[in-house]
Amino acid sequence: MGLLEKIHEPKDLRSLDFTELNTLAQEIRKQMIDVISKNGGHLAPNLGVVELTIALHRIFDSPNDKLIWDVGHQTYVHKLLTGRFDRFSTIRQYQGISGFPKRSESVHDCFETGHSSTSISAAVGFAKARDVLREHHHVVAVIGDGAMTGGMAFEALNHAGHTETNIIVILNDNEMSISPNVGAMSSYLNRLRTDPLYDKRKEEIEELLKRIPGIGSKVAKMVAKAKDSLKYLLVPGLIFEELGFTYLGPIDGHDQALLEEVLDQAKHKKGPVLVHVVTCKGKGFKPAEDNPDVFHGVGPFNPENGKIIKKPAPPTYTAIFGDTLCTLGKENPKIVAISAAMPSGTGLKDFAAKFPDRFFDVGIAEQHAVTFAAGLAFGGLKPVVAIYSTFYQRAYDQVLHDVCLQNANVVLAIDRAGVVGDDGPTHHGVFDIAFFRIIPNLVFMAPKDENELRHMLYTAINYDGPIALRYPRSAGQGVPLEEPLREIPIGKGEVLREGSDVTLIGIGPTVHTCLSAAQELRHRGIDAAVINLRFITPLDRELILYYARQTKNLITIEDHVLKGGMGSAILELLEEEGIQGVNVERLGYTGFVEQGSIPQLQMSQGLSVKGIIQAAERLNIVHSIPKSADKVSVGK
Amino acid sequence: MGLLEKIHEPKDLRSLDFTELNTLAQEIRKQMIDVISKNGGHLAPNLGVVELTIALHRIFDSPNDKLIWDVGHQTYVHKLLTGRFDRFSTIRQYQGISGFPKRSESVHDCFETGHSSTSISAAVGFAKARDVLREHHHVVAVIGDGAMTGGMAFEALNHAGHTETNIIVILNDNEMSISPNVGAMSSYLNRLRTDPLYDKRKEEIEELLKRIPGIGSKVAKMVAKAKDSLKYLLVPGLIFEELGFTYLGPIDGHDQALLEEVLDQAKHKKGPVLVHVVTCKGKGFKPAEDNPDVFHGVGPFNPENGKIIKKPAPPTYTAIFGDTLCTLGKENPKIVAISAAMPSGTGLKDFAAKFPDRFFDVGIAEQHAVTFAAGLAFGGLKPVVAIYSTFYQRAYDQVLHDVCLQNANVVLAIDRAGVVGDDGPTHHGVFDIAFFRIIPNLVFMAPKDENELRHMLYTAINYDGPIALRYPRSAGQGVPLEEPLREIPIGKGEVLREGSDVTLIGIGPTVHTCLSAAQELRHRGIDAAVINLRFITPLDRELILYYARQTKNLITIEDHVLKGGMGSAILELLEEEGIQGVNVERLGYTGFVEQGSIPQLQMSQGLSVKGIIQAAERLNIVHSIPKSADKVSVGK
Repeated sequence: MGLLEKIHEPKDLRSLDFTELNTLAQEIRKQMIDVISKNGGHLAPNLGVVELTIALHRIFDSPNDKLIWDVGHQTYVHKLLTGRFDRFSTIRQYQGISGFPKRSESVHDCFETGHSSTSISAAVGFAKARDVLREHHHVVAVIGDGAMTGGMAFEALNHAGHTETNIIVILNDNEMSISPNVGAMSSYLNRLRTDPLYDKRKEEIEELLKRIPGIGSKVAKMVAKAKDSLKYLLVPGLIFEELGFTYLGPIDGHDQALLEEVLDQAKHKKGPVLVHVVTCKGKGFKPAEDNPDVFHGVGPFNPENGKIIKKPAPPTYTAIFGDTLCTLGKENPKIVAISAAMPSGTGLKDFAAKFPDRFFDVGIAEQHAVTFAAGLAFGGLKPVVAIYSTFYQRAYDQVLHDVCLQNANVVLAIDRAGVVGDDGPTHHGVFDIAFFRIIPNLVFMAPKDENELRHMLYTAINYDGPIALRYPRSAGQGVPLEEPLREIPIGKGEVLREGSDVTLIGIGPTVHTCLSAAQELRHRGIDAAVINLRFITPLDRELILYYARQTKNLITIEDHVLKGGMGSAILELLEEEGIQGVNVERLGYTGFVEQGSIPQLQMSQGLSVKGIIQAAERLNIVHSIPKSADKVSVGK
Repeated sequence: MGLLEKIHEPKDLRSLDFTELNTLAQEIRKQMIDVISKNGGHLAPNLGVVELTIALHRIFDSPNDKLIWDVGHQTYVHKLLTGRFDRFSTIRQYQGISGFPKRSESVHDCFETGHSSTSISAAVGFAKARDVLREHHHVVAVIGDGAMTGGMAFEALNHAGHTETNIIVILNDNEMSISPNVGAMSSYLNRLRTDPLYDKRKEEIEELLKRIPGIGSKVAKMVAKAKDSLKYLLVPGLIFEELGFTYLGPIDGHDQALLEEVLDQAKHKKGPVLVHVVTCKGKGFKPAEDNPDVFHGVGPFNPENGKIIKKPAPPTYTAIFGDTLCTLGKENPKIVAISAAMPSGTGLKDFAAKFPDRFFDVGIAEQHAVTFAAGLAFGGLKPVVAIYSTFYQRAYDQVLHDVCLQNANVVLAIDRAGVVGDDGPTHHGVFDIAFFRIIPNLVFMAPKDENELRHMLYTAINYDGPIALRYPRSAGQGVPLEEPLREIPIGKGEVLREGSDVTLIGIGPTVHTCLSAAQELRHRGIDAAVINLRFITPLDRELILYYARQTKNLITIEDHVLKGGMGSAILELLEEEGIQGVNVERLGYTGFVEQGSIPQLQMSQGLSVKGIIQAAERLNIVHSIPKSADKVSVGK
């Protein structure tokens, strides 16, 4: 029996000596590699925080002290040390434990996360609540250097520095978010990290001082005399110091004793403290150390050599998007692409390599990404912003005002739309139809398959104005890719199957579910039309109205919540046209969707052939054949 | 004829000498005071940037060079100098010129704004477009110190510093956003501004140096020798320098010659430059200098003495909200309030004065405000976040994940919901019903009048979970305020009038429009029921279904866009319940709403008694009396 199995709660850690802790760290790494090589998950970030997490749970007293994990995908070690060792093998699986902090799982998970840059805000909240209630515990936020590029983290630093409350921010600096970090803050951290003496800056200052007439040379000499010590003391962490934080670091995040010493120092300081900890993403597993972005979030792999286990599948929507954009980019030098710290995830890596001057990774900064794109558009380019559906929630105001109100010529690529699987509710993209379709001026479309995705992207590039394109996280349908690329008429849906009893309306890949359901219904004597809606805005009003009147029964199906979705748009249309006597059944999600495989989640909520058949039953079509003649008459 | 009338475009400024410019500045101030004292508007910010705007238009060559104004309410001077002197008296009026930059108004308005902290993002976009297209103009963003606290501005600085592109950021530092600024960044700027020698910091460093064994005293002596000059050179603007910007300043923003000299320097530097300009909000009009927050955005006033012209009106919803929260705060010490730089605008000034330890102004930082509130809630308090509807668009992801997904005990007060009048499309709060009602777990209500607002706030305080409260920018209905405060049953609407021909469903003050319309319909022989829906989520399904079945005709009216709104929620309900044979007419806005007075805007879009009558006509109820007996039967 190893050490890890004996850790049931954080206090069990406190009796171990550093040799035992070293053994424990190895066991934790082994356990994580074993489980994640089967389940998939965020391996590299967790390998990087083994010593840090142990140190935090030895120096602080969770749940009395509050530990808040930014993004939260680096909490596997924390889970293993807080009574979830037994359930660890279920991580990220349907009805298993979450890959993120979850309040319902443990009292040690005091704040749920999933999106980046929230931890300092939450921590300031916990800290001020403690102050108001005159309690006396510690509040610690652990945030990566990538998350620190999100504006929200800056807002929170700005507030925390001002309140002077006791709060400890651990800057877990691994030089990466998912892909290598970008931005001036990242360069700044790099300077702190790699060169505590900070020579370059010193030289610049000396140069500057020399140029001041009269006093220049004198001051320069003085500075030279002060040697490195003065600069070292003056400069490291000054940005944080200026914002009201006491800066400690940078320190080696894999030196258990040093970590504990510095965390203990931080614990006894007054006011906001920032501890700059340098860690190695993927630490202890060579393939992950060598390719931290591949092992950031990874599917099943061989735990011996890190080889990724790939099931044969058609290329993903994301890959097809990336390839097509490269093709279009070659022909049209005005196309530029923008990612918010996700060049790989959004399929833009090739574009970035082929057109480095026309690719912009702005960091974890969705707000800036969208408004930046609007600026690019008004400057005469054709920007394509690729962001996951769930992360567009961070840039809603910018899409509304900076792109759509001004009719900016921006293509919004909405990747990972619909349920995304194991990452669960914070990552599903199931609200975007509702919050985007209400925005005036925006054309909003979704392809039924990867072939249509290509033509839609081509259409978007040729369109003059704001236009959005929604596609899922999954392999394509494996359909042939037709050449040449062609424009799809804006606002026009596609009839894939004629039918007179009921019309099945799908958007995106749910169209294929409709086609399968239509076949199944056929066996039951029901004649179903199938429409690929293609455009959520503008709606193909004529087409929908025609089939509504013809078949009197509509079933809509979308990989999205029911409220405000595509089905609701169709209800609005029927109301606007005063159509009566048409029965509608809408299929979609009814609330937050939990984690699980994509098919599991969809089937559990009726987004399936069976779900459509059941909807047809609720409409009483199944038993209503043969149709009576009066069914064709149009209401009102 | 004055000088101002002769300025038709920026180049007309370039022949003037500094004496003439001084005269011109006076004429501009007079013109703004004259017009704004009638129309209302953002007086103080514009009085502060007269010299700066003149300097920008003399040193840079708009529209070839791009001037981007953050927030945009400080562009009146810019408008006067770019060919809009003739139309200036129509500013902020229905069909007049906008109080914000507007691309359709002038080629000199290259980017529209309204919400803060976007200018640097847009500017980086323009700059990179210029680089890709190998053009050679200048790009200048003008941003206030308040807007600099918005995280998005930091995201953009971070990107700009990294790209090393030529861009000039003018930090217009007037020590205020709308209310005095808060936050560590503000303190930092204050240190730069008021104390270039930066004594306090210096002493701290000296203290620190002294404590280093061995080298301490020696270094301290050296530092003392370097006197002020060393610190002055080392410290000012270091945060910006560290982020990759060349920092120039601080300089006096009312010294025309100095401004032009420094802007010209900036123009000739390579890479990102930040010019720190210190201005006086309200400059040149004593009442505005003395009370810059009152004259930030102001209604009509006496141009002689600055006395605000107040029409007698009942207290506003905002005022009643603030008063009620003070009352509740006295009884319940767990209530805390949060504002994002709007303590006055959201009615929280009294609460802040009465409970200074329980009030938090976090700066222009809506994202942080909401997640901070979630932290406060999990820390054991009852936070009330008060933000304008339009600014919640900035915190959508935070409401979704940090409050609602975790069921945090947070009250979201949504002020300025519906159209807000003269500020126009960037400020109307007409999307919130659609984007909030789709969020699972959130209770979402709106009071019909200021009395109900009080009871709803009381209800929200007593409710356990996320709950939102939507109310407009306007005077209340003048109804009596009932005591004691009582809880309103969650999810229950209120029948205000029985009727059998049609049901009018209102939410918020549109309920009163329904009541008036019902009387009018009565005169036409139509018997209209009136429902005050109160809750958008959860819907009072029973009540709606009952009246739908009884009257077979529903008219919904909401101060909100039609897509995804309250009316759509009702359509969804009817579909879910398989109700047939009910005719629905929804009233609301169909797209972006322009500027104008609130009644003007509402009437122009059919949100009026007349609009309801017309809707009734479309339903053919008006001419359908007497009712036939079969009308009462329920469909399907």
